[in-house]
Amino acid sequence: MKTISTDKSYGGTQGVYVDRSEACGCDMTFAVFVPPQAAKGKLPVLWYLSGLTCTHSNVMDKGEYRRLAAELGLIVVCPDTSPRGDHVPDESDNWQFGKGAGFYVDATEPPFSANYRMYSYITDELPRLLAEEFPVDMDRQGIFGHSMGGHGAITIALKNPDRFRSCSAFAPISHPSVSGWSKPAFRKYLGPDEKSWRAYDACSLIEDGHRFSQFFVDQGTADSFLEDGLRPDELRQACEAAGIPLKLRMQEGYGHSYFFISTFMEDHLRWHAQKLEK
Amino acid sequence: MKTISTDKSYGGTQGVYVDRSEACGCDMTFAVFVPPQAAKGKLPVLWYLSGLTCTHSNVMDKGEYRRLAAELGLIVVCPDTSPRGDHVPDESDNWQFGKGAGFYVDATEPPFSANYRMYSYITDELPRLLAEEFPVDMDRQGIFGHSMGGHGAITIALKNPDRFRSCSAFAPISHPSVSGWSKPAFRKYLGPDEKSWRAYDACSLIEDGHRFSQFFVDQGTADSFLEDGLRPDELRQACEAAGIPLKLRMQEGYGHSYFFISTFMEDHLRWHAQKLEK
Repeated sequence: MKTISTDKSYGGTQGVYVDRSEACGCDMTFAVFVPPQAAKGKLPVLWYLSGLTCTHSNVMDKGEYRRLAAELGLIVVCPDTSPRGDHVPDESDNWQFGKGAGFYVDATEPPFSANYRMYSYITDELPRLLAEEFPVDMDRQGIFGHSMGGHGAITIALKNPDRFRSCSAFAPISHPSVSGWSKPAFRKYLGPDEKSWRAYDACSLIEDGHRFSQFFVDQGTADSFLEDGLRPDELRQACEAAGIPLKLRMQEGYGHSYFFISTFMEDHLRWHAQKLEK
Repeated sequence: MKTISTDKSYGGTQGVYVDRSEACGCDMTFAVFVPPQAAKGKLPVLWYLSGLTCTHSNVMDKGEYRRLAAELGLIVVCPDTSPRGDHVPDESDNWQFGKGAGFYVDATEPPFSANYRMYSYITDELPRLLAEEFPVDMDRQGIFGHSMGGHGAITIALKNPDRFRSCSAFAPISHPSVSGWSKPAFRKYLGPDEKSWRAYDACSLIEDGHRFSQFFVDQGTADSFLEDGLRPDELRQACEAAGIPLKLRMQEGYGHSYFFISTFMEDHLRWHAQKLEK
């Protein structure tokens, strides 16, 4: 692992690191904030998965998570959203597919299956690296994210309920198998058989019997992607039918951007911190 | 004035606007955050001047001012750092001069004098526009900034002590007439006669009799520009000699970036808000 930068912030250290990913077949960059409490021992770790077009840096720059993470003693990890590099297949004019749009799946279709293995990267490879390199208590992990990363957080929590104690999302893609901006990507990553898509779709996973203790979701009412792309009502219906508690807050007048995310970041960090106490 | 974007954030509105500037001979973009208290009447206004290479957006994205501005009821205005446009003379390979590096002076030397009139823009033109378009109480103004913008804030406060009730800075350029990154710019904007530079140099203005009620400065000890570029000790000496109270905090281990600024933003906003109370 190579350190790209470290900066003191709120008494802790905001670092940016790069390491060779076997899962993705490329170098992968990620950000880790280590709060000052790390001087006294291992700390819980909170994963933040970003949305379409983002890298590790969008939430690091605009998410306003460090103040609370430093207060609450949380390590916050912010991975990239796709494999990177000139050798990685891409559609450079399509912001909803390819680089910046990995959708946290393990692609099965060539040529994408060689690199687009973000599910394995996030759930297996990067956790092992973190446990080696940072003072993380891997028995206390939470996960959250935004939009495509909210989809990633919810699906990864549903598939790994013993690993994560908490899961929340800002404006998550709730039903990617049917949304306009995710359906073409799922077809290219996972093939034409829509049954295979169910393993990466929050609503389908719940229908198929996956469970998680509780979800917390904030959604802006002025979000231009609300009706087709995000579909929070379908997540609500799936959770209700399955008996999964869902705290869904419709935030009047808020959009899809980090102006929305940063406003409610404190609520999410406090919610996770409470569930990640010893 | 044209609205580029508005986003709800922390209950208020973060807007980005553009207007034709007579002073700068070009369109100028700026950001204004209006907190929710504006629904009940006019509010104090706090000017934030940014540093080299920045536009209005750096502090808007990374400065983390909205939470406190919404709590304290402050309108925060973030102008650009130079004139813009293809017709504006520039040195595109020099980040310390030209676009992104207006130094908040009124240039007197051609060809720069036609556009580089940031002092007039900030002290005269933009305030008039703000007073027309936003619910600002112009009797309650504060000013702060970072690096080149800290220089701008301190010099503008010293030259307009009746207009501003409060002034603070993050890592300001304290003595630009002698610093390596500002001296060449001052020569090109203001000409070879260094006497004319004194009107835009904090230490020189104080030596020449300008006064302000009090300054508050935060400076990181790990700031790579500390010794040549910033020179806080020279500001301290000038303030001591003149009897101007200076609260100068050396922040151990902090650098020059927004990771530093955002950490101490709350302290600065609370400091200004107290001085801007009715």
